[in-house]
Amino acid sequence: MKKILILGAGLSSSSLIKYLLDHSTEHNWKVRVGDMSLDIAKKKIDNHENGEALEFNVFNEQQRIEEIKNTDVVISMLPARFHHLVAEKCIEFGKHMVTASYVSPEVKSLDKEAKEKGLLLLNEIGVDPGIDHMSAMKVIDEIKAKGGEMVAFKSSTGGLVAPEYDNNPWNYKFTWNPRNVVVAGQSVAQYIDHGKYKFVPYHQLFRRIEKLSILDVGEFEMYPNRDSLSYRKTYGLEDIPTLLRGTLRRPGYSKAWNVFVQLGVTDDSFVIENSEDLTYRDFINLFLPYNTKDSIEQKLCDYVGIDIESEMMSRLKWLGIFEENKIGLANATPAQILQKLLEEKWALGPEDKDMIAMQHQFDYKLNGKTKRILSSLVVRGKDQVHTAMSITVGIPVAIATKLFLTGVIKKAGVIVPTMKDVYEPVLNELEEYGIVFIEEEMDLD
Amino acid sequence: MKKILILGAGLSSSSLIKYLLDHSTEHNWKVRVGDMSLDIAKKKIDNHENGEALEFNVFNEQQRIEEIKNTDVVISMLPARFHHLVAEKCIEFGKHMVTASYVSPEVKSLDKEAKEKGLLLLNEIGVDPGIDHMSAMKVIDEIKAKGGEMVAFKSSTGGLVAPEYDNNPWNYKFTWNPRNVVVAGQSVAQYIDHGKYKFVPYHQLFRRIEKLSILDVGEFEMYPNRDSLSYRKTYGLEDIPTLLRGTLRRPGYSKAWNVFVQLGVTDDSFVIENSEDLTYRDFINLFLPYNTKDSIEQKLCDYVGIDIESEMMSRLKWLGIFEENKIGLANATPAQILQKLLEEKWALGPEDKDMIAMQHQFDYKLNGKTKRILSSLVVRGKDQVHTAMSITVGIPVAIATKLFLTGVIKKAGVIVPTMKDVYEPVLNELEEYGIVFIEEEMDLD
Repeated sequence: MKKILILGAGLSSSSLIKYLLDHSTEHNWKVRVGDMSLDIAKKKIDNHENGEALEFNVFNEQQRIEEIKNTDVVISMLPARFHHLVAEKCIEFGKHMVTASYVSPEVKSLDKEAKEKGLLLLNEIGVDPGIDHMSAMKVIDEIKAKGGEMVAFKSSTGGLVAPEYDNNPWNYKFTWNPRNVVVAGQSVAQYIDHGKYKFVPYHQLFRRIEKLSILDVGEFEMYPNRDSLSYRKTYGLEDIPTLLRGTLRRPGYSKAWNVFVQLGVTDDSFVIENSEDLTYRDFINLFLPYNTKDSIEQKLCDYVGIDIESEMMSRLKWLGIFEENKIGLANATPAQILQKLLEEKWALGPEDKDMIAMQHQFDYKLNGKTKRILSSLVVRGKDQVHTAMSITVGIPVAIATKLFLTGVIKKAGVIVPTMKDVYEPVLNELEEYGIVFIEEEMDLD
Repeated sequence: MKKILILGAGLSSSSLIKYLLDHSTEHNWKVRVGDMSLDIAKKKIDNHENGEALEFNVFNEQQRIEEIKNTDVVISMLPARFHHLVAEKCIEFGKHMVTASYVSPEVKSLDKEAKEKGLLLLNEIGVDPGIDHMSAMKVIDEIKAKGGEMVAFKSSTGGLVAPEYDNNPWNYKFTWNPRNVVVAGQSVAQYIDHGKYKFVPYHQLFRRIEKLSILDVGEFEMYPNRDSLSYRKTYGLEDIPTLLRGTLRRPGYSKAWNVFVQLGVTDDSFVIENSEDLTYRDFINLFLPYNTKDSIEQKLCDYVGIDIESEMMSRLKWLGIFEENKIGLANATPAQILQKLLEEKWALGPEDKDMIAMQHQFDYKLNGKTKRILSSLVVRGKDQVHTAMSITVGIPVAIATKLFLTGVIKKAGVIVPTMKDVYEPVLNELEEYGIVFIEEEMDLD
């Protein structure tokens, strides 16, 4: 009997835990789920005979050691900054680990020892990072195999509300950690365009958008992610002249969000001492010059250069930023105050379903012609537990864990799923779960 | 015989060392000057019989202990981040210390012990901070003494080229650390205006200027300093509705500098990997969208919304940012590259003289009337050694040290010169050195 230890039983673990329990009898697995909340862990196990729930605290070193010693593979769904605490003990006690998070420098540093001990530390096997890597590498490898030369790669992913439930002027609801959305992009974005490096400071980011259309779900815009340059190495595209990764939003979102960036209300670096007693209207006024002759609405429009009748202003007004409601949040940063307001307005309703959209664009030269492949994915949430986000993050983690335990994936060291013998079997099984990329090919000449 | 140890013999120490040596025979002082460069220390001593030069390395703890043990008072003119290394040993061995720098949290934490041992750690007694504190407190105390109620305090200081040598389109030359000028303002500015807190993000800072005129040296503009709110406590103005501190530049500087901010070229947070091989023209293009139909000049104008024939563009062109000269600086940040260019263009010439300008504006109510006092200072450099910056930083440090050694200033603990029994004798003697504030008073009703 193989033992699997899952650490963290939050939203992103729902589909993962269900998959592993569903396959546990067939493969003779014991699935132990640890969370800070025993209740949440129990709920996810749902009395399954092969499941066990426990209260788990990552800062309790003794517990960490005991639990890791007593398993075969650990799946860490903890916040990314804690993975290395788990990874170090996995190496010490000869256990394997799987995560959906970016490889941190601390985890990276364990590569040599992991290889020596024949241990797998598989990371970046969620959705973004994860499904994006695997689906991109599949097409890149195919293009290279037929002798094509990659000239541009653009890739973008978004977690959004499904079109049927998209009923607010921002065409956006929170389907994931709201904080990450509020502070997104707060360091320089770096990419390469026709052989030229491009650097975009935060205050220009939401102006530097590109438009795209995905299958039958309509129009989107993407703003650049922080780091595209490092993906040249990750994807074996060291000499590619154009590489850009981005985040998807519905058209018009970035232009309106940019008003917040221009004002400075997404700043998370300082605390507003009297925040509890302010209204949202007062809050916005903190960022505008003193002037008693104009309304706050007019001052904002003049300051950021938009029209008071513009669509941007409609979006801002709909959020209630000009209303006289008390914030009621003490010692808060601007970003925390904005988040509180957005959490009220952008909440998924009890019947709402989410959607993950992803599109890769591959431009390549073959036999003197330039061609383009668009590879697109749309996944819709099933319900409030098995959301598109939970499915696309958790199912690839679960599949990879199964394929490793059943001997299909044979790897050691700190890796990400860019090798064919990893991504191919995972992508194949993902199709059974409705995670299917649609490819469109066209000539560019 | 009293012993004075001066650590750091750079530009800002010239006038300080000269003052102390000039007064050393009268007061029976030995002045020991330590610098990383023995040559520089020797040059500043200039064979004076009461002077001694030594090579000093602040990281050599043994040397630090020996030198501090063997003196009565230490004047630290080292970079501000090293003061606490000196301060800790001063406390340990029962010595006094004087600096021209802001009180750091590390130095602040020594207050209790300093008081218990009867030791003085006097800080912020240069120009800004220093002369600004003293001259502001003098007027504030006078207004309070006659029963006035302060309603607004604005204060600004600038280190600039003297008008007679002001011959470039930016009306600016470096008279101090160029790096500080390039990265100035890169965190949110906080002030209070008519009872309303105001927060200004970096990308709006150079648009939020106020205009002012100082004595016979003409027009200026000020942009807000990072932290004005904490000065309410420093100056005993806890309930003042308006308090703003700023930095002075000549008119039009901020508008043109803002182009650099908008582009992102003042960013010091990342390295451009191929910086050595780029030209300045390539460098600017890194921050502009890819587009082959427009010139880089046109792209820049469109991107930041300025006219190609504007005065801002004249200033930018004069700097050479569109020229095809190689940068020749490896692994540099954008800020470092910009600094290299500016150091060539904004250098003080061998005959040039600098200027310190400062202006305080005090608005107060007295007997039902609102009045304003403007208190203004202009100091011009004497030559390339005794610059206005060196004089205004060093002379107050020197005077305060003398007044302490001669028993006029009697204080202990970590202090800044906001008390009358400190600022009054220092300001009195500063007048002998041409550091004289001119007051103008007017009715506002």
